Amino acid sequence: MDERIREHAAVLVDWSARVEDGDDVVLSAGPDAHELAVAVAEELGERGANLLATYSSGEITRAYLTARDDEDGFEEPAHERALLEAADVYLSLGGGRNTSATADVPGETRQKYRSARKAVREARYDTRWVSTVHPTRSLAQQANMSYEAYREFAYDAILRDWESLAEEMGRLKTLLDEGSAVRLVSQNTDLTMRIDGRTAVNSAASVAYDSHNLPSGEVFTAPYGTEGVVAFDVPMTIRGEPVEDVRLEFEDGEVVDHTAERGEAVIGDVLETDAGARRLGELGVGMNRGIDRYTDNILFDEKMGETVHLAVGRAYDACLPEDESGNDSAVHVDLITDVSEDSRLEIDGEVVQRNGRFRWEDGFESEDGRSR
Amino acid sequence: MDERIREHAAVLVDWSARVEDGDDVVLSAGPDAHELAVAVAEELGERGANLLATYSSGEITRAYLTARDDEDGFEEPAHERALLEAADVYLSLGGGRNTSATADVPGETRQKYRSARKAVREARYDTRWVSTVHPTRSLAQQANMSYEAYREFAYDAILRDWESLAEEMGRLKTLLDEGSAVRLVSQNTDLTMRIDGRTAVNSAASVAYDSHNLPSGEVFTAPYGTEGVVAFDVPMTIRGEPVEDVRLEFEDGEVVDHTAERGEAVIGDVLETDAGARRLGELGVGMNRGIDRYTDNILFDEKMGETVHLAVGRAYDACLPEDESGNDSAVHVDLITDVSEDSRLEIDGEVVQRNGRFRWEDGFESEDGRSR
Repeated sequence: MDERIREHAAVLVDWSARVEDGDDVVLSAGPDAHELAVAVAEELGERGANLLATYSSGEITRAYLTARDDEDGFEEPAHERALLEAADVYLSLGGGRNTSATADVPGETRQKYRSARKAVREARYDTRWVSTVHPTRSLAQQANMSYEAYREFAYDAILRDWESLAEEMGRLKTLLDEGSAVRLVSQNTDLTMRIDGRTAVNSAASVAYDSHNLPSGEVFTAPYGTEGVVAFDVPMTIRGEPVEDVRLEFEDGEVVDHTAERGEAVIGDVLETDAGARRLGELGVGMNRGIDRYTDNILFDEKMGETVHLAVGRAYDACLPEDESGNDSAVHVDLITDVSEDSRLEIDGEVVQRNGRFRWEDGFESEDGRSR
Repeated sequence: MDERIREHAAVLVDWSARVEDGDDVVLSAGPDAHELAVAVAEELGERGANLLATYSSGEITRAYLTARDDEDGFEEPAHERALLEAADVYLSLGGGRNTSATADVPGETRQKYRSARKAVREARYDTRWVSTVHPTRSLAQQANMSYEAYREFAYDAILRDWESLAEEMGRLKTLLDEGSAVRLVSQNTDLTMRIDGRTAVNSAASVAYDSHNLPSGEVFTAPYGTEGVVAFDVPMTIRGEPVEDVRLEFEDGEVVDHTAERGEAVIGDVLETDAGARRLGELGVGMNRGIDRYTDNILFDEKMGETVHLAVGRAYDACLPEDESGNDSAVHVDLITDVSEDSRLEIDGEVVQRNGRFRWEDGFESEDGRSR
């Protein structure tokens, strides 16, 4: 077995999920994540956890959903709920054979299935849950990369020094927590957002940081009162449609105009979902420098160092005061902009990041143009 | 998809497990049983059942068990127990990549793991559970057959007219239930067993018949008071050891002598397990004529038409009066004898089967040598 698979398993079990002796662990494995599942099973055995493996296959889901009589709707699967309610940890090892395996399942059917599974999902969110992906040929293909190159890419993103990255991200979290307003200035972008009263999440790929993806490596908060213009220059796929060079204009917290070089219609559809879809739910700063290219996979793209992403739609509860529900919406769609050049991020008028470098980093240029 | 896979799935879901609308179904899939799992998911969707797929991999079990610190033993997995207690149906689709995947796990470790999972197992037995196998390359290899030929073989065994086979097997069950003693006469064999007070199981591959394997196709009961000699001419593998031409001699219900052309030591080990290991726990008559060769897989071999098998060790509760525990033992080891030639099976002195033909079949030769 590739030593990196073992390292991935160890990071997942120790750093991310904090598995302890006696934990009841559900290990959800995709069909092509078998090798990682074997490595994780070994880690779980060493730690004295109890293991049940489940099988997550897009082809099984598609066969099941397309066969269901849609009119009857779906029931809550009581047995799956019982499993998750009794579980301490849920580890999802993504790794299918075809990232489009469920492409022909009607959206309405998915939505009904999703609705019926609400209690199951909530039970999962009550565990120490972590989602990761095993680098597969299908993900390599999605990223337009060879399998070998994709594996290099994925392990560079996953096998970080998470402890020191968490410490660095903690600095940005502190600045965001103490700040009142954020300004993002870049090519075709000048946007201000309010953040006072909001709490940033140091998404350091560990349940100890309320962070549930491996890889991660972003700091995010829930902005409001957005004003100005922002351009997103990172191409991506949204609802199966290629989207490029989206431009959003905000007034009084709401999108008042949108354009896109490609995929303008799908952006329009997203914005029209509900009232919350026109407001921002997330401001995220990517800080994982192990990710050095876009692969059209939001799990990786939004964590890339020297990028900033904004999501229209739902805000995460973790960013909000206890009595506030934040921006409510059925959608949460991320859009990404490169901030490695001609860019600055300000908090309350102070430059925190310029041209991709944070103020505490070598190479940061202060206001007067001198490098630190 | 091969149409036979769909047929297999339909037989499993309809005939074997009697799945109904709203059933909570656990679908346990081996790594190479993916295609069958997809077909079963479709059947479950059509029937309005709720589906959770679990993943059963010898490699994962091996990694987990070898990593566990053996001295600590194992805990009961509470989450898996909760899942099974909430499930209505459990479908096991065997299909690994290597039938020897757990060969280097020490027996003592397996035993501890098995003991810790007693409640999980009992919860599974309380569902409408059915075990089947997807014909894989590893099973073909175990059977010393090509993949294509093995698939023909497996589907011949699985895709029977179960309803009419169940009816035929019901005839033998009635004779056994009403009878007091069975005598088996064949080359080097003359054995008598008492069966009065015992109930035969019509193992017709359906939970409706208290039969939990697909394929099945045997009628079995729990004999006692065995006297005489029996020779088993079907070669098999027991505890990883090849065994050939076993001969057992019984007095007053117990094995008093044993020999074997090959594997005599492993037979001796089995017989010395406990007191019950020297007594018979099962007399089974194979009636599945779709199985026409030995493949060193007990699930198929013991169901083969024109064979009889006897097991030393534990008896099945279903064969016993409610207040009797029957033959108690930690083992249950089946041995098979071919009865297609020079053989007869008598119940209370009446010949029920001669040279593989039952008295109700064409080709049955009655006492005076006339064919029916």
